[in-house]
Amino acid sequence: MPASAELFTLLTPQDALAKLMAQWRPAVRVEVVATSESLGRVLASEVVSPDNLPAFRRSTVDGYAVCASDTYGASPGLPGLLMVVGEAPMGRPVHIRLGPGEAGLVHTGSMLPQEADAVVMIENTQTVDGGGSNASGSLPTIQLPSSSGYIEIMRPVAIGENVLNIGEDAKRGQTVYASGHVLRPADIGGLMALGLVRVAVASRPRIGIISTGDEVVDPNQTPDSGQVRDVNAYALAAQAQAAGAQAIRYGIIPDRRDLLEATVAQMRHECDVVVLSAGSSVSARDLSMEVIGSVGKPGVLVHGVAVKPGKPAIIALCDGVPVFGLPGNPASAMLIFDLFVTPAIDALLGAQPRRPHILRARLSRNVPSATGREDYVQVNLEHRGDELWAAPIFGKSNLIYTLVRADGRIKIDLDANGMRAGEWVDVQL
Amino acid sequence: MPASAELFTLLTPQDALAKLMAQWRPAVRVEVVATSESLGRVLASEVVSPDNLPAFRRSTVDGYAVCASDTYGASPGLPGLLMVVGEAPMGRPVHIRLGPGEAGLVHTGSMLPQEADAVVMIENTQTVDGGGSNASGSLPTIQLPSSSGYIEIMRPVAIGENVLNIGEDAKRGQTVYASGHVLRPADIGGLMALGLVRVAVASRPRIGIISTGDEVVDPNQTPDSGQVRDVNAYALAAQAQAAGAQAIRYGIIPDRRDLLEATVAQMRHECDVVVLSAGSSVSARDLSMEVIGSVGKPGVLVHGVAVKPGKPAIIALCDGVPVFGLPGNPASAMLIFDLFVTPAIDALLGAQPRRPHILRARLSRNVPSATGREDYVQVNLEHRGDELWAAPIFGKSNLIYTLVRADGRIKIDLDANGMRAGEWVDVQL
Repeated sequence: MPASAELFTLLTPQDALAKLMAQWRPAVRVEVVATSESLGRVLASEVVSPDNLPAFRRSTVDGYAVCASDTYGASPGLPGLLMVVGEAPMGRPVHIRLGPGEAGLVHTGSMLPQEADAVVMIENTQTVDGGGSNASGSLPTIQLPSSSGYIEIMRPVAIGENVLNIGEDAKRGQTVYASGHVLRPADIGGLMALGLVRVAVASRPRIGIISTGDEVVDPNQTPDSGQVRDVNAYALAAQAQAAGAQAIRYGIIPDRRDLLEATVAQMRHECDVVVLSAGSSVSARDLSMEVIGSVGKPGVLVHGVAVKPGKPAIIALCDGVPVFGLPGNPASAMLIFDLFVTPAIDALLGAQPRRPHILRARLSRNVPSATGREDYVQVNLEHRGDELWAAPIFGKSNLIYTLVRADGRIKIDLDANGMRAGEWVDVQL
Repeated sequence: MPASAELFTLLTPQDALAKLMAQWRPAVRVEVVATSESLGRVLASEVVSPDNLPAFRRSTVDGYAVCASDTYGASPGLPGLLMVVGEAPMGRPVHIRLGPGEAGLVHTGSMLPQEADAVVMIENTQTVDGGGSNASGSLPTIQLPSSSGYIEIMRPVAIGENVLNIGEDAKRGQTVYASGHVLRPADIGGLMALGLVRVAVASRPRIGIISTGDEVVDPNQTPDSGQVRDVNAYALAAQAQAAGAQAIRYGIIPDRRDLLEATVAQMRHECDVVVLSAGSSVSARDLSMEVIGSVGKPGVLVHGVAVKPGKPAIIALCDGVPVFGLPGNPASAMLIFDLFVTPAIDALLGAQPRRPHILRARLSRNVPSATGREDYVQVNLEHRGDELWAAPIFGKSNLIYTLVRADGRIKIDLDANGMRAGEWVDVQL
C-alpha cells in the first residue's frame, strides 16, 4: 500500500485529541497562593470585585475641583472667576465644601469635594493676582497652583470631566476575571487593587516522564559505542514546565516489559499524565504499545496519527490517567507533546485557550507535503527589507540541533498539497 | 505653548534609552545551574560542542545496512539479492562485518557496520523464503524482519541514504549556541545530548522596587477615605519576573525626602536597577526627581519622554546603577517599565534581542494621536470570520482594569497622525 493511502487510515491530530477528550474527565486541583507569587498561574474560580474601585471620586489631573455649571461659557477672552476655598490633601478625606462660584485645589488622585462634579486642568486656569497662566512649557518648571484667592477659568468643563467615578475601574459584585484566566503582570496589580492578596489557582499538574530504549543513557554518563544520551526526558520536562505543569522524571527504563510495566503502573498512581518517550527501534515502540495497553482501562485509544513527524504516537487512557507514547526522535516527541500533552495540561489547569506565539512570514521556498497528513516544518526567520521570511529547514527529524537552530515551525494543512515559495504562513515560535 | 509643540522638546523613547545606554556599563553576573533547571535562563557564554554528535554512524530507519553499490539497478522487477549476515543490536557496538553482497539488519538508531554506507528501508525489501514484501499496510501489524538468510532489494539506495553521519547533528569544536541565547525546551535537550548537564547562565538581575505616595497603602490594608492600595509595586515586580529578573520590593515610602533618600540610597547598593513608582500628585513626582538627582552621579539623564501614556518618566544613572522614576498610574508605569526597564534587564542578562509576542490585526476604528509622540493604545482582539481585528480601548490610563481587560496594545509611531479603521497593526500581547 503506498504511504499516502496508508495515512487515510490514521486519525487526524484533531480527531485523535477529540477521542481522548471525549472519554477523559480531567479534575482540576486547587490551591491558594499569594497573589504576589501568582504570575502565570491559572485562576481556579471567577473573581468578583469585593468593593468599588475607586471607592471615592478621584481627580485624574492636577487642577481645580468645580461645579461644572460654574464654568459654562468661560473662554480665554471672557474667563470665569472662581474663589479657591482650600486644597484636597493626598491620602486623606477631603473636608472642604464648595459653595456656588467656589473651587478647590486638587492633585492627580486626590479625593473630590462632595459638591464638585468636574475638575478644570491647571493649564486652563490662571491666578488672578497677576501670576499669569499656569500652563507650563516644558516639564521641569511647574508653577505652584494656588489654594486660596481667585482663579480664572479659560475653558468650560462638562460634568464628570477629569473625574474618576466610584466603581469606574471595577464595581462591587462585578466579575472581573473568569475562571481559567492565566495571570499576567497587570492582573497581579488588578487583584492587589481589590485587596485580594491571596488567590485560588489550579495546582500544577504532575507530568510523569520516562525515556525507554536500550541505547539511551543518562546525560551525566559518557555513552559507549552504540549508546546515546537521553535528550527527550529533559526537553519534554521543559515543555511541561513551560506549559505550567510540574515535570517528574522517572529515569531511563530499559526495554524490558516487567520493568516498564512496573514503572508505568507506579507513574499512573503518582501523576496526572504519563509520558513515555519510546526507544527509536520498532521493537521498543511495540513494547511501549503492549505496556500502555496493559496498565489500565480502556487502554490505547489512538495508535498512529496523520502527522509528520510523529506518526507512531500512542494515546491511551488508563483508569482515568492519560498515557502518551511518544516517538523516540526529539523533533517528533516534542511536536506530539505540543499537540496532545499540552492540551491535556491545559485541561488539568482548567485554562482558557491561550494564544500561541505566532508571526506571519512569507515562505522562502516550496515545501512539499502529502495530502491527508498535517506536516510540520521547522523554519528560520529572516528579515528582507520590511518583510519577514520563513526559510524551511529540511534536516532529518532525528537531529536535535535542527530544532535548536529553528526559530519556529509552520503547519501544512491536511488537505494541502505542499506550499509554494512566497505564500504567507503562520510561524509558531 | 500647545501640547504638541511641547512634545518636540522631549526625547523620543528610542533616544531616551540610547542616552542611558551610552553612559551605562551593565555588568553581567554569571552562575552555573543544572541544565535541567535552566529553562528561560540566558547563556552567559557561547557553548562549544565537546564531541561529535552522533559519535557513531546511525541508521535513521528500520532496514538493512548495505554497501550502496550492491543495490544499484535493483527494481521490483529485477530485485538485488543480498545475504543477511547478522543484526546490529541497540545500544551496543556492532560486530558484524559486511562482505560484498552482504547486508546487516539494523533498527532506527542502531550503529552501522563499518563497511555499510547506506540503509535500505525494510519496506523496500522482501525476504526470499516466501515471506513476501515487508511493506506493512497500517501501523499495528509489523512483520518481523530477518537477521539471516537472503533478502531482495526492490529499490537502489545512494551512498549516505538513511544514515546519520558522525557529527551531522553537531561537530566537535563547533559553536552550537551564542552567548546571550535564551534557553528553550529544545535547547535543554540539545545541551543534554552533548553531556552538558550544567551550564553557565546570567544571574537574575536584582530589581529594587518602591512605591511612593502619601495616598498609597499596602494591599493587605483596608484603605481609608482618600487612600488607595499599592498596585504598581506588584505589577512591576511581576513584569521584572517575566523579564527574567528577581524583584525585591522595598515597601511603600511616604512623600518625605529624608525617608525616600535613605531608601533609594540603600537600594542603589543592594540592587542592579532601582525603580520608583511615584505618587500620582505633581509634588510627589517633583520629590522623586529631587531624590533621584541626589543619590549618585551623573544623576538624572532624562526627564520626560515623548510617549503617551508615561510622559513624566525619569531616567537616571546614579554611580553606575540605573534609577527609573515611573509615573504613578498603572498603565503609564507598566508601559515605561516595558520601554526602559526591560531593556535594562536584557542588558544585565547579556540577552540577545527577543521577539516580542506580536499578532497582526486590523484596526476596528480610527485612533487619533499627536505627531511627535509615540502613542500606545490598549486593544481587545476579536475574530471576524478569518480575520483578527483590534478594537481600541479608550479607558482612562488611571484605570488598572483597562489593562486587565486588554489583550495587548498597539503603537502609533512618532510621525503618524493617528491611524484609520481597517489599517493593519501589530498587536503586542
